[in-house]
Order: sequence, then C-alpha cells, then structure tokens
Amino acid sequence: MKIILIGASGTIGKKIAETIGKDHELVRVGSKSGDFRVDIGSGASIEKLFKEVGPFDTLISAAGDGHFGPLKAMKEADFRKGLDSKLMGQVNLVLIGQHYIRPQGSFTLTAGVLGDDPIRLGANLSAVNSALEAFGRAAAIELENGVRINVVSPGLVEDSPHYFPYFPGHIPVTMDRVAAAYLKSAFGAQTGQVYKVV
Amino acid sequence: MKIILIGASGTIGKKIAETIGKDHELVRVGSKSGDFRVDIGSGASIEKLFKEVGPFDTLISAAGDGHFGPLKAMKEADFRKGLDSKLMGQVNLVLIGQHYIRPQGSFTLTAGVLGDDPIRLGANLSAVNSALEAFGRAAAIELENGVRINVVSPGLVEDSPHYFPYFPGHIPVTMDRVAAAYLKSAFGAQTGQVYKVV
Repeated sequence: MKIILIGASGTIGKKIAETIGKDHELVRVGSKSGDFRVDIGSGASIEKLFKEVGPFDTLISAAGDGHFGPLKAMKEADFRKGLDSKLMGQVNLVLIGQHYIRPQGSFTLTAGVLGDDPIRLGANLSAVNSALEAFGRAAAIELENGVRINVVSPGLVEDSPHYFPYFPGHIPVTMDRVAAAYLKSAFGAQTGQVYKVV
Repeated sequence: MKIILIGASGTIGKKIAETIGKDHELVRVGSKSGDFRVDIGSGASIEKLFKEVGPFDTLISAAGDGHFGPLKAMKEADFRKGLDSKLMGQVNLVLIGQHYIRPQGSFTLTAGVLGDDPIRLGANLSAVNSALEAFGRAAAIELENGVRINVVSPGLVEDSPHYFPYFPGHIPVTMDRVAAAYLKSAFGAQTGQVYKVV
C-alpha cells in the first residue's frame, strides 16, 4: 500500500510517519523537506506532486496554516491565510487527488478542535476546521470507485506546548491517541466521518 | 433601531424584510437593487457601504453564492466561488462592520443545512456553511461592547421549489419558521448560537 503523507515533518506528521512508516511504502511530503515537496497553497504544485508520485492508495494530510490573531484587528488578508492554505490546500488534495488515487483508496484530512470549541484569536481556524469537517462529509457521498474520506479533528496536542497558554483549560491529547485516529481513518472501512481526538 | 439587511431581495431576504420592515428602520441592501448596493465579494464595496449607511444596530445577512456541481468535475475556481462570496463576504461584513456597529448591536449571518446534511453536488456549500457556523461561535467570544453574533442555518425553504429535486427526502421548512430564527437572533439576547431551522 502506497501512502502519501503531506506535512510529514510537522508535529503530527512526524508521529504518523513513525507509526505507519515501518509497515508501508510511505511517501513523505513537505513544504521544505521530504521525498517530495509541495506548496499546498498552489493547485499547480499539488498537480505536479501527483504526477511525480504516481498512483497511490492512501493520502494523509496533516498540513496547512491559518491565521491566529485578535478579531478586532483581523483583515480579509488575514482570514484568507487559512482559506488558502489549510482549507483550499487540503480540499485541492482531494479535488485533484481523486483523479490519481487507486480504487478503494482513502483520503484523510486534518481539521482541529477550534471548529467546535473556539478560543480567543482563533476565529480563522475555527471556520477553516469546521469547513474541512463538512467537506469530508460531503465529499464522501460523491467519491467514486470505493474511495473513502475522513477528517481527523485533534484537540490541543501534547507535543505543542507553545500553544498551551492560548488554550486555557484544554487538556492536551496524547500523540498516540492522535496517531490512532489517522490509523482508523486510513486502515478502517468508514467514510464521511470526523474523528475527534479530545 | 437601525437594521441593515444584506440580500434584501432574495428569497429569504424578502421574507425578513416583510417581517421586520414595518416596525424598524430597515436599510435594504442588495447586489442589484435596494436602498444601497453592495458586492459582498469585495471588501472595498463593503467598507463603502458602511461609510454610506453610517452607524447601525443590527446587521442581517442573507446573501452570498456558492458552487453547485459534481465533485468529480470540481476545480479550485469552482470551490472558491463559495469561499469568496458566501463565506468571505459574510465574514467581511463582520470584520469590517465591527468598526461601525453600535454597542449592544448584533450580526446575523446565514449558513444552511448542507453543513450537517450533505447532498450530491453540494460539497462547496457544505464547507462554506459549516465554516460560517464556526466563525459565528468564535467571533461571539471576541466581539466587544456587548455586540452579539448568531448564525441562522435554514433547511431547504418552501419558497425555493426549483431546489427540491436536488434535496431528496428533505422536508421544506416554512418561510415563517425561517423568519422567526432571524428575529430570535436579532431581537433576542443570545450570542454565538447557530439556529438550525429544519
């Protein structure tokens, strides 16, 4: 099984790579490192990636940025950071990737707890995360040839202590629990699900 | 109380105008008609609108388009239709409008049932609708001076029979019930809520 992991060098991506890299053909993709490079903010870069990597069975994305800052000072350009990167980037992995994925393959995207459970400074990521969850539910009913899609929505992760001060009262989730959600999505049989790791 | 209604000539906007227009100073805004015009896809047009209308108490938006079409043929440009119009447009009404709204004022935005309950061809609007719901939850905890925000998420409405064939098994909701949700948001005291009309 050939697995493309987007965001392989990130906090969550590293853990996913550790967990599944031994047993599977893992293609590590990052913006600055990895077997292949991609700028997920660019559809052309994503198309090029799929052409280079060739047919695959599983795509896991743990990539994409958003804007973090006060609503009072937020401008359209700030809000578009999350729309262009974490949202459109991951959606494009599916819109383009659906033409390269093998039958019975799967997509797993990453959202996050702020969709349901907002914090100060997080309005952009709240919107982006819930959009991704809904896109997963919707895409699942249209993908063809048995291709599945799920979305993992992790809480504050234990390996990102620099975020802790912004998430008062959030109980960090272990990296093992986060990795388990990606395994469930990629190797289970469900589709259109949102796996909330809280 | 001065109320700005964006999308005043649309199916839902007309009903809102009928319901609240008699008792309040209603500023009807549309893309092609109304007391004032706005292109909600343009931040500059929104800024101009607020400058022209002046301080207000309540903004209700029932405006914004998205893409409706099969996932298999969907391109980034299609998906961006909903991001640029229904999502970024309504978010911009808040990002910009927060600097013009009076204390204790309120924003009400419009999402829709596809966020929770997807149909074929609707992946773009599913994502956009859930994004708006999450944005409302998040913005509510940061808006200042007692300003509130809620999101109305209507099901398939009875006055849009041309959509019925695309929504098998959806029971149309009455326009009265839809209008009631906007009244609840604008004249009630809650904030950060999603009013689902189903």
